[in-house]
Amino acid sequence: MTSELPPHDLNSLFEPRSVAILGASSDPLKLGGRPIRFMKESGFQGKIYPVNPKNDEIQGLRAYPSVLDIPGEVDQAIIILPAKFCAQAMRDCAAKGIRMIQLFSSGFAEEGEHGQAMQEEVIQIARENDMRVLGPNCLGVVGVSNRFFATFSTALEALEPSPGVISIATQSGAFGSCAYSIAIQRGMGLSRIVATGNEADIDVASCIDYFATDPATRVICAAIEGCNDGNALRRALLKAADHGKPVILMKVGTSEVGVAAAATHTGSLAGNDTVFEAIFEECGAWRARSIEEMLDIAYFCAQLPEPSSRRAGIVTVSGGIGILMADDCEASQLELPALPDSSAKEIRALLSFAPIGNPMDTTAQVSAVKNGVTLVMDQILSQTDWPIMLLYMAQSAAAPVKFEPMKLELYKLREKYPERCFVLIGPSDAGVVKELEANGFAVLADPSRAVKAIGAYRQIVERRERLRRLPSGPGGSLPRLPDVGNETLAKSFLHEQGLPVLQEQLCNSPDQAAQAAMSLGLPVAMKIVSEQILHKTEIGGVILNLNSEAEVRQAYDTILSRARAKQPDAIIDGILVSPMAGDGVETILGTSFDPVFGPMIMFGLGGISVELFKDVAFASAPLKESDALALVDKVRGSALLKGWRGQAALDIAALTDALVKLSRVASDYSHEISSIDINPFLVRQQGGVCLDAVITRHM
Amino acid sequence: MTSELPPHDLNSLFEPRSVAILGASSDPLKLGGRPIRFMKESGFQGKIYPVNPKNDEIQGLRAYPSVLDIPGEVDQAIIILPAKFCAQAMRDCAAKGIRMIQLFSSGFAEEGEHGQAMQEEVIQIARENDMRVLGPNCLGVVGVSNRFFATFSTALEALEPSPGVISIATQSGAFGSCAYSIAIQRGMGLSRIVATGNEADIDVASCIDYFATDPATRVICAAIEGCNDGNALRRALLKAADHGKPVILMKVGTSEVGVAAAATHTGSLAGNDTVFEAIFEECGAWRARSIEEMLDIAYFCAQLPEPSSRRAGIVTVSGGIGILMADDCEASQLELPALPDSSAKEIRALLSFAPIGNPMDTTAQVSAVKNGVTLVMDQILSQTDWPIMLLYMAQSAAAPVKFEPMKLELYKLREKYPERCFVLIGPSDAGVVKELEANGFAVLADPSRAVKAIGAYRQIVERRERLRRLPSGPGGSLPRLPDVGNETLAKSFLHEQGLPVLQEQLCNSPDQAAQAAMSLGLPVAMKIVSEQILHKTEIGGVILNLNSEAEVRQAYDTILSRARAKQPDAIIDGILVSPMAGDGVETILGTSFDPVFGPMIMFGLGGISVELFKDVAFASAPLKESDALALVDKVRGSALLKGWRGQAALDIAALTDALVKLSRVASDYSHEISSIDINPFLVRQQGGVCLDAVITRHM
Repeated sequence: MTSELPPHDLNSLFEPRSVAILGASSDPLKLGGRPIRFMKESGFQGKIYPVNPKNDEIQGLRAYPSVLDIPGEVDQAIIILPAKFCAQAMRDCAAKGIRMIQLFSSGFAEEGEHGQAMQEEVIQIARENDMRVLGPNCLGVVGVSNRFFATFSTALEALEPSPGVISIATQSGAFGSCAYSIAIQRGMGLSRIVATGNEADIDVASCIDYFATDPATRVICAAIEGCNDGNALRRALLKAADHGKPVILMKVGTSEVGVAAAATHTGSLAGNDTVFEAIFEECGAWRARSIEEMLDIAYFCAQLPEPSSRRAGIVTVSGGIGILMADDCEASQLELPALPDSSAKEIRALLSFAPIGNPMDTTAQVSAVKNGVTLVMDQILSQTDWPIMLLYMAQSAAAPVKFEPMKLELYKLREKYPERCFVLIGPSDAGVVKELEANGFAVLADPSRAVKAIGAYRQIVERRERLRRLPSGPGGSLPRLPDVGNETLAKSFLHEQGLPVLQEQLCNSPDQAAQAAMSLGLPVAMKIVSEQILHKTEIGGVILNLNSEAEVRQAYDTILSRARAKQPDAIIDGILVSPMAGDGVETILGTSFDPVFGPMIMFGLGGISVELFKDVAFASAPLKESDALALVDKVRGSALLKGWRGQAALDIAALTDALVKLSRVASDYSHEISSIDINPFLVRQQGGVCLDAVITRHM
Repeated sequence: MTSELPPHDLNSLFEPRSVAILGASSDPLKLGGRPIRFMKESGFQGKIYPVNPKNDEIQGLRAYPSVLDIPGEVDQAIIILPAKFCAQAMRDCAAKGIRMIQLFSSGFAEEGEHGQAMQEEVIQIARENDMRVLGPNCLGVVGVSNRFFATFSTALEALEPSPGVISIATQSGAFGSCAYSIAIQRGMGLSRIVATGNEADIDVASCIDYFATDPATRVICAAIEGCNDGNALRRALLKAADHGKPVILMKVGTSEVGVAAAATHTGSLAGNDTVFEAIFEECGAWRARSIEEMLDIAYFCAQLPEPSSRRAGIVTVSGGIGILMADDCEASQLELPALPDSSAKEIRALLSFAPIGNPMDTTAQVSAVKNGVTLVMDQILSQTDWPIMLLYMAQSAAAPVKFEPMKLELYKLREKYPERCFVLIGPSDAGVVKELEANGFAVLADPSRAVKAIGAYRQIVERRERLRRLPSGPGGSLPRLPDVGNETLAKSFLHEQGLPVLQEQLCNSPDQAAQAAMSLGLPVAMKIVSEQILHKTEIGGVILNLNSEAEVRQAYDTILSRARAKQPDAIIDGILVSPMAGDGVETILGTSFDPVFGPMIMFGLGGISVELFKDVAFASAPLKESDALALVDKVRGSALLKGWRGQAALDIAALTDALVKLSRVASDYSHEISSIDINPFLVRQQGGVCLDAVITRHM
């Protein structure tokens, strides 16, 4: 599949045949010397052209006064010059026909206005000359398999990378080298590492896009602080998912301090954390909360086949750890089905005293049975289709010689069940781990981390089965939003768009109100309508259950005088008279325009569950019926809609229909509408109804 | 302090001067041979007496046909014989005057009824002869500093322990050796490790109690699956807290499968997980969720002084990791105050471009400043009293030679600020880590784990400042509980105990009800009273807001006929007429009798917050005023009581007073009361009131 693709426009970033270094240094320890040293030492097979007007030779290579003096084609230039010289260097590169630049230099947008101007200048040059730029202020690229060590990061000096299939793209260089270093220290293989710095052009999303079809990458790790082009990120994540490559992503800046720090660190928006999380899920990616978690999951994805279901079997040589792992499985949404009778019977024949179950605690008795552990595993694997087999092997793999016979039995098992995920848990000798890995096992010392990682892997596979594609933008001319400046107008607009509202009348006198009440039928509800009064209930502007003409007239006066007392400056459009809405559960339907990802839909229950318990879910607009249902199901409070404590189930179909239609409005009018709040939307046994609505336009 | 204490009764378990091994084997690889080999190889200084009737000599030591043949005193015996021979071995040990037994043998309670009987027999022998027993079915004891390697665990064969101040007590042997092996693999020092097995006598709590005054232990790790003596566990945890020793505790068996597995694995109760967590907190202990988390926290406690507040400073060489750590600090309740102006000014003088803040991102500019990183740290430390200093040092500590100058500067800083906690973060060379540790630093590669661990350490210190002592049991004769079999009786009893209730009348005719309503004053509420009808509202047995005598009469008939229709067999005690309770927020006050820890108090908000969001907190009874306030503060929904969205604050003092009095009832009547449900307890602007109450007795 990948061989049929046209060459990716970032090919020359990751796979250049020749590279010029502007600002090359003879000192292999200096910034301008390190990349040359790293590439030479690692055995990079492409051509390296140091550029420096002061030297003929640099680190044993012929040096050139200018890029223009280099003979032949140059795929990529690395610029390591003071910021003020970079524009000229870019022009030279353009003249030489170099289309890919790594701009390591700092002193640009990250250092204020002047730097910002210089950054714009170099990007302008790049645009005019069809050049792509990584950086500025970036750590560069490391390609492990092609030995392209184009970075000045000292991480390479401390730790030599080993080749693997996991690639890492991060905005922050430190983030990347932290992940890199931890990965290398624990013996994980890596493929490519890239840090994008200021992202004046190439961003993390572009790199994910490249990795999605990169034959050298099977698993993608990434970290972002914000995002300037939400749709590009979504497209890249979806592309990776389509190519079956798991993406494990970190997004930092969730806390108040974190968001403040993110704003000082990069120019990009930290964004709404919950929205990011929803988008990642829709695009099949997994959000990791720590670097170690990210690496654990990536490691499992690289080592193991895709788990085809959530079902797992646990075999342990002792009960306590099995119980811990069962707790962890529940937290990670893995299932531990009961052992089939046939397995139970065979295991009982092997181990007369062990408590038969899942987790299967073999007890110490297993040591008296030749190949006892693997026999037990085989009995479970042969009688089930559970894709996940977790073995807690205590410290047996920490003693290489003693572990030898068991290791060979494990290999046989692995060959017999090639489609299963074998996770081996327990502190192990580093050499043994390497061997087990080469034979298709994943090995971790800590049981909880192992369960969490395999659970996340399964979730990634599930997410891939329900990807949300990017909507095609509104076709043709954009619709004009009518006046929606008060509740009546907003509801009437939503009604036109297919959402259910009550039949109601805006009245401007007690007489009108009384007449309206009679024609709508008693009892009625009355409430103030004014663009300036957003919290009607709190000023006493809503009175329910009015049962007579007299009560209606009196309510008219009461509401009006309360409004005048509480908000004397408000322009009052009138008082709305409507039939009582009936029984049901109050929910909140909302839309917001996320600065990164555009129109989003929000759903939550009324009352305290949104404000106090943050029990709210987001999805990108527009929604299909099934998306709407998934959104509703994400909210814990939705239990109240589904026949709570013996009460009748409510009309979820009416709710999801309203969500779908609302999402269409948010999406069709995203150029005008900033947010819609339908609070409450009453879900009844039959149908639902918008009881209040506020629509705000973009500022 | 510890030197004044009398010798602990477990001294001869952990510090025997002489030990006999019954079932000693000449084969150093066999169960009966391993402990002898381990002790000999490790250099145990006490006397070792192998006992085996078939050999004169075992592994180079003189062997004895029976313990009775051993000359001189024997502090401890290790029994490694088939279960059926253990009773006789115990008798021999008793005759020899041995008071401490490690019973490694399996085949006891863990293997069913017959084993249970044998276990009872050996314990009976122990009781009669004033002997203590570890086990049966246990892995034994490892003392690293006294080289007492009295175990048959193969963990010792794989990994040689290094001495430290952390001791580990676990029920499950595998749990212990997993923690042991992970600790040793990561280079953590350990003091004592003990696995208690079936806990027929000595349990994890006894070991914690020992460690609390053990000079060789400064930090305690423990893992339990259940607990048979809740008060003993609490006393041990409190003792450790009183001696300033952090306890980090795991309790497994929280999931459905986990609890089921726990039940097959040990005879002890898995208990109510939330209750365990509340008790741990009251006793100053920290509950860890994974083995690695437990070890991380223990490591920080062992390495660092106690953090005197939650305030932390972060210094990083790059922004991204700083943001991640700021997010993690928020999650771990650590505070990142703004830098003092004086620090900011000095740092600005050093680093002209770096964004000044906390996290303090030095940017790469710091590399151009000699000792830049430590100078920045010094500027923060000298101008603040923040006890926690987190340094993300990228991979600099992974390159020992290059790190040398910075290391020396760090040591100076450490000496200058001996009372601060220095946490160094980043992948580091193992040798460098050892050195840094020897100089009082804690080092971890993953930023998130580091923040979590120091946050937990601070929480442990805070918990120690508000320990909940064990209540002294009810003095004198136990009070008799009157008849509380229906709502009226229950409320009247609670009223006698000082809890506020409405003045109300139980009526048996429409006339009586009308008369009551008139004397109480309209409007009134009416509800059915019957011991058989627990959910009054759901059968339509409650009518509120009755405004006239006629309405009251009619309501009487309506309620009665509904009750007869829905629950024809219920014995109806009458219909309660009470004044309307007024406005307020409905809360739930409850008590339960936990099988492990006795009477507990529960608090939550009414409505869905308890049932759907599990927003509920537990504490042990009885409560003081301040305990009650802390309990209320743990519930998120309590925000509704404190002036929610501009509403008036409610009478929290009335609520806590009710909780205190209720807790006293639960505690005084714990011999009779199984549970009390006050649902709802209405908290008003002035006062509160129990609107319903159900009291159940022990079955």
